[in-house]
Amino acid sequence: MNVDSYISGFVDGEGCFCVSFQPSRRHRLGWEIRPSFSVSQNGDRAQLLYEIQKHWGCGFIRPDRSDKTLKFEVRNVRDLVEKALPHFEAFPLLSSKQLDVELFAKICTLIRNGEHRTAQGFEVIVKAAMKMNSSGKRKYTGNEILSSLTAR
Amino acid sequence: MNVDSYISGFVDGEGCFCVSFQPSRRHRLGWEIRPSFSVSQNGDRAQLLYEIQKHWGCGFIRPDRSDKTLKFEVRNVRDLVEKALPHFEAFPLLSSKQLDVELFAKICTLIRNGEHRTAQGFEVIVKAAMKMNSSGKRKYTGNEILSSLTAR
Repeated sequence: MNVDSYISGFVDGEGCFCVSFQPSRRHRLGWEIRPSFSVSQNGDRAQLLYEIQKHWGCGFIRPDRSDKTLKFEVRNVRDLVEKALPHFEAFPLLSSKQLDVELFAKICTLIRNGEHRTAQGFEVIVKAAMKMNSSGKRKYTGNEILSSLTAR
Repeated sequence: MNVDSYISGFVDGEGCFCVSFQPSRRHRLGWEIRPSFSVSQNGDRAQLLYEIQKHWGCGFIRPDRSDKTLKFEVRNVRDLVEKALPHFEAFPLLSSKQLDVELFAKICTLIRNGEHRTAQGFEVIVKAAMKMNSSGKRKYTGNEILSSLTAR
């Protein structure tokens, strides 16, 4: 058994790479960018979440408010860039969800390099994020975000 | 990347080992036993379902009526015993879902050996099946089934 491959297979089914945008007065451009990797599982068989947390050495496990599951989540950008994403470079997803992983990696690297603080970098991030998770719902469209920046 | 381990990780999240019971006049004891292994995925990233089908050399892929997913399913008992279940002996699930796999394997082996045709073997199968998927709904309880056998 190869645990790394096992984790990738599990994440292919259950994992979520997500970048959300939240209006924020504390941020120069008026928006906070929140990248996160998460994977949920029923509480009675959540062993694998603890296995991933131990294996990667990052992230938090907490109950999901919306249902009776536990959620393993990595939100810290440094942990995402240095611990979570290298896993998916070495053991990529076999489904088209890998495209989301690559967009997510691009966004996290831009943030890690501070480029989200410039209007140009921010725009690249918004456009990449809007290509991700095409089946999901978004609170704000890319145009809504980009047309409301509080600085340029 | 180890594809076998990847498949087990994917199945840990998304797979279902299920044994259902259907009243049947064609069966001596009055019940048909239907074991199945299935795993579903959104149609736009169903590559892995075809990968598993090719890898194991069995099963069918079809649209799931209940939603917009595709489902890979193995129902043939010989295929389950000879192709699907050996995978999970070699690459067992890391979560408690492995307990379901072991009960499922026991049931499929009993059926393969024809023991479901005796009241004694049938009872062992019903009792094992009722221990599986404890979070799911069942149409008939074990007692309802066992108290209505048409032969002993």
